[in-house]
Amino acid sequence: MDRTKVAIIGAGFIADIHAESYHRFVPEAEVVAVCARSEERARAFAARHGVRSWFTSVDDAIARSECDIVDICIPNDLHARTAIAAATAGKHVIIEKPLCLTLEEADEMIAACKGHRRKLMYAEELCFAPKYERVRALVREGAVGSVYHMRQCEKHSGPHSDWFYDLARSGGGAVMDMGCHGFAWFRWMLGGRPRAVSVQAHMQTGLIHKDRTRCEENAVCIVEFEGGTIGVAENSWAKLGGMEDRVEVSGTGGVIYADLFMGNSALTYSEHGYGYAVEKAGSSRGWTFTMFEEAFNQGYPQELKHFVECVRNDTEPIVSGEDGRAVLELLYAAYESARTGRKVPLPFHRQVSRPIDLWLGPHADEPASIRR
Amino acid sequence: MDRTKVAIIGAGFIADIHAESYHRFVPEAEVVAVCARSEERARAFAARHGVRSWFTSVDDAIARSECDIVDICIPNDLHARTAIAAATAGKHVIIEKPLCLTLEEADEMIAACKGHRRKLMYAEELCFAPKYERVRALVREGAVGSVYHMRQCEKHSGPHSDWFYDLARSGGGAVMDMGCHGFAWFRWMLGGRPRAVSVQAHMQTGLIHKDRTRCEENAVCIVEFEGGTIGVAENSWAKLGGMEDRVEVSGTGGVIYADLFMGNSALTYSEHGYGYAVEKAGSSRGWTFTMFEEAFNQGYPQELKHFVECVRNDTEPIVSGEDGRAVLELLYAAYESARTGRKVPLPFHRQVSRPIDLWLGPHADEPASIRR
Amino acid sequence: MDRTKVAIIGAGFIADIHAESYHRFVPEAEVVAVCARSEERARAFAARHGVRSWFTSVDDAIARSECDIVDICIPNDLHARTAIAAATAGKHVIIEKPLCLTLEEADEMIAACKGHRRKLMYAEELCFAPKYERVRALVREGAVGSVYHMRQCEKHSGPHSDWFYDLARSGGGAVMDMGCHGFAWFRWMLGGRPRAVSVQAHMQTGLIHKDRTRCEENAVCIVEFEGGTIGVAENSWAKLGGMEDRVEVSGTGGVIYADLFMGNSALTYSEHGYGYAVEKAGSSRGWTFTMFEEAFNQGYPQELKHFVECVRNDTEPIVSGEDGRAVLELLYAAYESARTGRKVPLPFHRQVSRPIDLWLGPHADEPASIRR
Amino acid sequence: MDRTKVAIIGAGFIADIHAESYHRFVPEAEVVAVCARSEERARAFAARHGVRSWFTSVDDAIARSECDIVDICIPNDLHARTAIAAATAGKHVIIEKPLCLTLEEADEMIAACKGHRRKLMYAEELCFAPKYERVRALVREGAVGSVYHMRQCEKHSGPHSDWFYDLARSGGGAVMDMGCHGFAWFRWMLGGRPRAVSVQAHMQTGLIHKDRTRCEENAVCIVEFEGGTIGVAENSWAKLGGMEDRVEVSGTGGVIYADLFMGNSALTYSEHGYGYAVEKAGSSRGWTFTMFEEAFNQGYPQELKHFVECVRNDTEPIVSGEDGRAVLELLYAAYESARTGRKVPLPFHRQVSRPIDLWLGPHADEPASIRR
Repeated sequence: MDRTKVAIIGAGFIADIHAESYHRFVPEAEVVAVCARSEERARAFAARHGVRSWFTSVDDAIARSECDIVDICIPNDLHARTAIAAATAGKHVIIEKPLCLTLEEADEMIAACKGHRRKLMYAEELCFAPKYERVRALVREGAVGSVYHMRQCEKHSGPHSDWFYDLARSGGGAVMDMGCHGFAWFRWMLGGRPRAVSVQAHMQTGLIHKDRTRCEENAVCIVEFEGGTIGVAENSWAKLGGMEDRVEVSGTGGVIYADLFMGNSALTYSEHGYGYAVEKAGSSRGWTFTMFEEAFNQGYPQELKHFVECVRNDTEPIVSGEDGRAVLELLYAAYESARTGRKVPLPFHRQVSRPIDLWLGPHADEPASIRR
Repeated sequence: MDRTKVAIIGAGFIADIHAESYHRFVPEAEVVAVCARSEERARAFAARHGVRSWFTSVDDAIARSECDIVDICIPNDLHARTAIAAATAGKHVIIEKPLCLTLEEADEMIAACKGHRRKLMYAEELCFAPKYERVRALVREGAVGSVYHMRQCEKHSGPHSDWFYDLARSGGGAVMDMGCHGFAWFRWMLGGRPRAVSVQAHMQTGLIHKDRTRCEENAVCIVEFEGGTIGVAENSWAKLGGMEDRVEVSGTGGVIYADLFMGNSALTYSEHGYGYAVEKAGSSRGWTFTMFEEAFNQGYPQELKHFVECVRNDTEPIVSGEDGRAVLELLYAAYESARTGRKVPLPFHRQVSRPIDLWLGPHADEPASIRR
Repeated sequence: MDRTKVAIIGAGFIADIHAESYHRFVPEAEVVAVCARSEERARAFAARHGVRSWFTSVDDAIARSECDIVDICIPNDLHARTAIAAATAGKHVIIEKPLCLTLEEADEMIAACKGHRRKLMYAEELCFAPKYERVRALVREGAVGSVYHMRQCEKHSGPHSDWFYDLARSGGGAVMDMGCHGFAWFRWMLGGRPRAVSVQAHMQTGLIHKDRTRCEENAVCIVEFEGGTIGVAENSWAKLGGMEDRVEVSGTGGVIYADLFMGNSALTYSEHGYGYAVEKAGSSRGWTFTMFEEAFNQGYPQELKHFVECVRNDTEPIVSGEDGRAVLELLYAAYESARTGRKVPLPFHRQVSRPIDLWLGPHADEPASIRR
Repeated sequence: MDRTKVAIIGAGFIADIHAESYHRFVPEAEVVAVCARSEERARAFAARHGVRSWFTSVDDAIARSECDIVDICIPNDLHARTAIAAATAGKHVIIEKPLCLTLEEADEMIAACKGHRRKLMYAEELCFAPKYERVRALVREGAVGSVYHMRQCEKHSGPHSDWFYDLARSGGGAVMDMGCHGFAWFRWMLGGRPRAVSVQAHMQTGLIHKDRTRCEENAVCIVEFEGGTIGVAENSWAKLGGMEDRVEVSGTGGVIYADLFMGNSALTYSEHGYGYAVEKAGSSRGWTFTMFEEAFNQGYPQELKHFVECVRNDTEPIVSGEDGRAVLELLYAAYESARTGRKVPLPFHRQVSRPIDLWLGPHADEPASIRR
């Protein structure tokens, strides 16, 4: 079997998960290169995952790694230019969420991939998480009748990397980081290209990261779709005790609850503690919800395998650049609603350099504006 | 011991719970009378609970039962006049939620009780539910730091009585019926007389009761308090599988989850089914979450005992008419927000004959407007 | 109302629970006296619970407190003599588990109460715990068909008081302390006077209390009843993380799971910890299962109220001295089985001075036999 | 990549799981043949799984399929002869539990594989179930101190195939079928070749399958290991409501609870029901615990992948024929204990033609002995 060659751009938290996922669950792919700005991190990643070449320049990685796929795992502000460079060089592109910072970038990325006849996948792992896929299958076979209310929570104690706090790089806080999961999942659950009609949002800042950022640390967003179904996304960077990812789906014929972390875990009481319980768990002393196979249960290997198969079989990914763009539009609308206190009708567009500016204005990240 | 005499006005679902609660847990009180419009129901209630006299006229019940307390368990549209009549006759008043239909009525009720130096308690049982009181105590001792987000869900498959569907009697749907619990509980958790600054709401209708009502059957309301803490209330009349009542409290130092029903129940699998699992459970075949001591776990006996003690010791109830009025104002704002799609600032007042008119307008319950 | 007067003998952990239970839930009773060997503890208890008189001699407490009921909450070795003294003085007797140390004592206690026409109640609170009573009601209405297997676990990290480690006082370890609950509950679930036909047991020692005792710290006992139904009791003094009390009931038509502590609790994550989570919880930092209304949920108030009503109405308690004796016989058989490795048929009797001698022999508590 | 060729012997429930597992998760293997006695079933299986050849004779399948591995998924009485035939023909052997019917067969199978230098793996999937492997890792890193008590339950409503009821084929009931999982898992948790010192068992029959078999339908077995740690296995063919597989591990420094099915599932309420909830769930109406990725969560793909890697890399499987034999010896001892009511010391051996004879005697399956 001729393996599909992947270059991973980035060597951080999520790049590690991708590398492990390819290695353990996608034998038809081979990670042939990694790229990180720091030579040390690139080398270490390559050694850790048995990757044969490493680069410190994205352009080099794209040009010289002989990859078929560029897998983009770097900060949000670099998404568009990297994707476009990759497509232009004839590579297929899979990109971590969110798609990019602006709708204009999104359009360019989509156009670039189309123009070069390259595939572009928006890597929304919740569309592949096996427990949630079971929920989706239940809904599709009519187990809960007609769905009128979905809820998706993703909450933890704050980002892995400093760049998330830098609005110029991230474009927003907990909603940009995790609300995108909920928004994408609501659309996926409804199927096809569901039309969202409005977004309402309430955002809070000044909680446990107030010395580092003015981003929203906690938020509730309500997305209304044509036909009246709503999706309520709750997202937090201020929730202690480990990663939370759970959904509820209410229909006229029933209801489903699913919890990816606590709802799968072993329950452990350890007097002296142990090494690792779950992402962002804090201490492992006392009671903990000990997670297993985190990458698999979140859908990462399934997502990557799907894209590799799309590339190999020339089929279209189930989550496309257009889906990523639709999610980004919802993010725009959420920030707009946070500012205006109004339900924002869709389609929605404003000319901004990043979504959070719709809430905080364009100067939110200037030093004086952050409390220290 | 000289027992405090109670007349229960109403003989329905909640009146039964009150009677049972007094009987089992409030020995210092005695239910001396019941009043129901139908002689048959009044008689049956009296027999069922060993109550010595029954009436079919509220005025008679107040005048002739020799009660100290009038406990009002009748439809919302009758709350104000009954409370005022009771106070005028020198009786103390405890009244089921919501306080009444309009802010004007609320003011009159409060004034009447004050004028006749009678006590008025707003019977919000969640302020007495022992599990939630444990949550409140945790918060007060600082277990979760500074609270920034509360969530309260109360959901079931629809009301016990037909009058709830009649807007002229109920004044609203799931939010009027159950959102009042969440709103009261948020205020109670914050303590003192917390100032709410805004309400945002999204409401849905046309679900499982669409042939009977245009009321909201499902809703999400976000109440923001001074200081920034939010309370998210989710309420539904379209949630199958039995009563749901759960809370989450997130603070800068931790988080608490509590579930009054599923989170207390025994878990039962019964091939052939059995009599009763929990309020509005539907079938008892297969898996069920079997509840026990429902009234106690929801706080009814504790609430009634508290009021009896207030009357006996001449102290003030912890949930007053003013609290009921404040909740009603939030209900007004929620319906207003559902119509306008905007965050409604508080204080808020409009002249309406019932809260739901702020959402649907004054003609919502005319026959032509209900789909059949 | 003329209140029934209770003298509590003992001022430790369980005496506190009884006093609180009478006070909050049994208005028809009044705790008029407490007795503790130490004047300081007796005084403190009386002050804590508003009890008007205290004694340091059991005989005085019985003779001079003018009580109707003697409620025995002292170490196991003192049960028989106290109960007999109380009955002889014309008092009704309620006694904490286990009934006493030997079957001969049991017979004398029962005879003394009968002879003086006094009531003797064996205070098995699990026969009153509301969740378990719900389970029993389900079984009785046929929800799970014919029951063939019951399991009851009671586990925690070890006793509250030092005397439990002293075999001469306790008569045994975790099985004597807590297996008695399971054994009593199995009998109660089957109803009537079910005939146990055998007991098999495996016991372990040398775990976390090995420096203090040679008692069994962990055990599994299987009781077989006529007709073939079994009850599996798991008991531990070596289980960290807080009190555990749970049951499973399997029948030919279904199954029931019920958990008195974790299965009722709020779930809390507290970064800095808080005061108290649940009996023997250890630390309250990190995740904890926060319990509420522990006495009520374990059935203490209901049990005491029942006895007070029996005394007032001259009816027989549902858990009698004979039931306590039957449980003691099962305890004997369990220790015998732990020694012999055989299923011990019932009825079973040996002449011993305490049950654990059947496992370890009569010299188990001599200094040299305990590892230090 | 040259794929390792597998012939699956059997076309029933477990053969389907194996085929699906190879297909989805073991790309380095290829199922090249299936064998079933019925041509129809063999053909259908081949079609269902895309297997290129099918056989109705085991000898043909071994001789003519050009397989490297024979994967044995047929009734217990055929295990030994099939394994020996495969080894003799130069094939590696992986075999479903239990290893075979008698210790003599076990010795022959092990000798045959050794003699022909073929690998023999005992397919105990619980040694690969990812949640349980997480539990094992926790224990190994000391999270719960020194383990003194393990519990493993596997319970459901009865076997998939009729041959399980036929003692001549199965060799026993719920303990033979599922107790083997617990016994293997206890040994695996302790690591190395732990020495079991005794087995105690209580077995029940005459429950929901009494018209079909005299086998044990419910059982509790206690295995004691050198050093004092115990393993309690609870197994049932009479437990309604779907497959149950859960473990508890108690140590001197903590405790772990893990549940493979309910503890992973989504929780669904469906008014009208849906297709499939979980293995042996019964109805899907009302509340159900909806399972996902059952094969993966039980460890089947991981187990098969491990064996394929052992074959490819010439390494030894972590669960060997010797382990299967050790489990079989524990099964013998369990049935012996069920008959004698005694703790049976190990090593244990009797000359029998199947384990259950040690409990019921050699004539248990004669027609007259089964109630119809």
